Amino acid sequence: MLGNFTYCNPTKIHFGPDALDSLGGELAKYGKNVLLVYGGGSIKKNGIYDSIIKILENSGKNVTELGGVMPNPTSDKLIEGVKVARENKIDFILAVGGGSVCDYSKAVSVSVNCNEDPWEKYFIRFEEPTCDIVPVGCVLTMVGTGSEMNGGSVITNHHQKLKIGHVFGEEVFPKFAVLNPEFTFSVPQYQMVSGIYDIMSHILEQYFSGEDDNTSDYIMEGMLRSLIHSADAAVKNPRDYEARSNIMWTATWALNTFVAMGKTTDWEVHMLGQAVAAHTDATHGMTLAAVSMPYYRLIMPYGLKKFARYAKAVWDVRPEGKSDGQIAAEGLDRMEAWMKSIGLVMNITELGANESMLDGIVKSTLIMEGGYKVLTRDDVRAILKASL
Amino acid sequence: MLGNFTYCNPTKIHFGPDALDSLGGELAKYGKNVLLVYGGGSIKKNGIYDSIIKILENSGKNVTELGGVMPNPTSDKLIEGVKVARENKIDFILAVGGGSVCDYSKAVSVSVNCNEDPWEKYFIRFEEPTCDIVPVGCVLTMVGTGSEMNGGSVITNHHQKLKIGHVFGEEVFPKFAVLNPEFTFSVPQYQMVSGIYDIMSHILEQYFSGEDDNTSDYIMEGMLRSLIHSADAAVKNPRDYEARSNIMWTATWALNTFVAMGKTTDWEVHMLGQAVAAHTDATHGMTLAAVSMPYYRLIMPYGLKKFARYAKAVWDVRPEGKSDGQIAAEGLDRMEAWMKSIGLVMNITELGANESMLDGIVKSTLIMEGGYKVLTRDDVRAILKASL
Repeated sequence: MLGNFTYCNPTKIHFGPDALDSLGGELAKYGKNVLLVYGGGSIKKNGIYDSIIKILENSGKNVTELGGVMPNPTSDKLIEGVKVARENKIDFILAVGGGSVCDYSKAVSVSVNCNEDPWEKYFIRFEEPTCDIVPVGCVLTMVGTGSEMNGGSVITNHHQKLKIGHVFGEEVFPKFAVLNPEFTFSVPQYQMVSGIYDIMSHILEQYFSGEDDNTSDYIMEGMLRSLIHSADAAVKNPRDYEARSNIMWTATWALNTFVAMGKTTDWEVHMLGQAVAAHTDATHGMTLAAVSMPYYRLIMPYGLKKFARYAKAVWDVRPEGKSDGQIAAEGLDRMEAWMKSIGLVMNITELGANESMLDGIVKSTLIMEGGYKVLTRDDVRAILKASL
Repeated sequence: MLGNFTYCNPTKIHFGPDALDSLGGELAKYGKNVLLVYGGGSIKKNGIYDSIIKILENSGKNVTELGGVMPNPTSDKLIEGVKVARENKIDFILAVGGGSVCDYSKAVSVSVNCNEDPWEKYFIRFEEPTCDIVPVGCVLTMVGTGSEMNGGSVITNHHQKLKIGHVFGEEVFPKFAVLNPEFTFSVPQYQMVSGIYDIMSHILEQYFSGEDDNTSDYIMEGMLRSLIHSADAAVKNPRDYEARSNIMWTATWALNTFVAMGKTTDWEVHMLGQAVAAHTDATHGMTLAAVSMPYYRLIMPYGLKKFARYAKAVWDVRPEGKSDGQIAAEGLDRMEAWMKSIGLVMNITELGANESMLDGIVKSTLIMEGGYKVLTRDDVRAILKASL
């Protein structure tokens, strides 16, 4: 049931092979001092860095570079970025990279003009910005998080062994995002399928919640079918533009608030995955993949109708002569087989976790209340053990 | 294939039973002189008018009323609205009603500060606004057109027997829209199902175009399944909030530019329906329903693969042992049976058309190029004849 909600998503998307041509026009709307944020430097190898530097120069900007944003951006790196932004009187932040770079840039943007410790303010106390926000724009080179069209920002604190996300309001959304599917062609297979599962998990964690009959659920079933189909094609041929463009666009819409409107949502898989990452620093989507099957098998009996619907609508399970339990289980079996077929990591051992870490990971896992079963700490332990 | 496009939809949506509570806050952002636009006066019977007048008074606005906007708003009425808006130095237009009232308000908004004849400028020469646009907000009381979150405006010129739509850019989109599904409970059944078919046609006219494998097509299949399901429930019980809320939200997303991004689209059914309306003044959705089946049966052989996909994905046609042609035909048969079951008008005779009007309607029909077959004038005549 679609109850009360407010929807507003002002991010402008420039999509397609020529999307970067729009960057100059967008930059013209903002001030002279630009902070160029990026990750490990892959953009210097594939030519994207050079193209962007040229556009920045032609736009007459003073550019301060801030590279080295790690896959799970840290609270220490956040402090560094805030310092650099302040010293260079930054007017605009241009994030070039994947979800980590976008997430990180948003965290910097709400912290530059704020005197408090940003980790404590935003990720422990979950407060809203009370200072001027520095506008952010994104050039996306890796797909999955949807960070290019939402207010999400996930930061990891290694001292506290916590990886926590804050979902900011529309004033923190990127002002624009440049989405060229060709920029994702050179992403390594491991990162590509990790991103694909991040997208899938975003959809599933909004889908597996509530007993209502919501148009968003039908839309998510369509998104999932498209994602599975395009993932298969992209795994076969990473330079399949049609597949990569569909995956890129699905990623954006899987987590730009649209399909969550008026619905309850779960997010426990993200909480489990983020706890694993806080202890292993493993790739985000892989942490989600590794905990998903034990989680869904544990909660399936509590949301049987929806799991049976999922099996039929997404995995083409024929229902004739079967109970809902059988249909639902068959759907999850097909999902698991598909996950393996595209090369997802299906256990946390492979991600660097081991028995001795379990206590810590259990403790780091936030318990959400929107799913079909509110987990106990014992449930969390059982899921993680099943994933060892 | 998702090629180059720019997506931006800044309209803020307030949805749900309490949505009208947001109106005061929205009005505070705009000037004092408000033009209150509405239709035939049903809002005075169901209490919505009184609620809105109270909010406008509490907001300290000077209100000028402009009622009597007809279901197919005319170019003459547009001239009247522009005159009233100028005389009262209008700062903001509040549209309260269905798609016609929203469409009309947008047409006024781009014409108030423009010295040219708006019909000639926007609907004959398809020019863009070159003057200050008066901002528009909508309170929706009838569902179908999607006008609450797009730049579309359709105006009818009875002198020229033309009904023409102009799709304006995001600067003309309503600044906000109040969507309370309960406001639609009292819409008569005929108008409700007409609106439902308008939604369906919007989706189908974007779906039945192109040979590519696009994530938007999967999303549209989900939307269609939800719409069919909710329509059945709403026909049974018009006060079914879940059904009405799903229909309302689907209507918005069926035509707010999202699912058209990067795709080709058709729109020939709208061109046929609008030509029928220009000669009969019939209800919009019914004109689309009346011409759809002959149109789709005529173009089906040219887009067989997509029609077969549609039959399977939306109408659950089992493909075993059947040719694509059989599958596709079975899908259209099921669609036709469903259309009749919810009470749609299936021929133009019932809408007031007759043999003697055919020449005129054929002449008024614009020919589009995005569908599976570009119609000849003879095709247009054959479709209309089959619908007599």
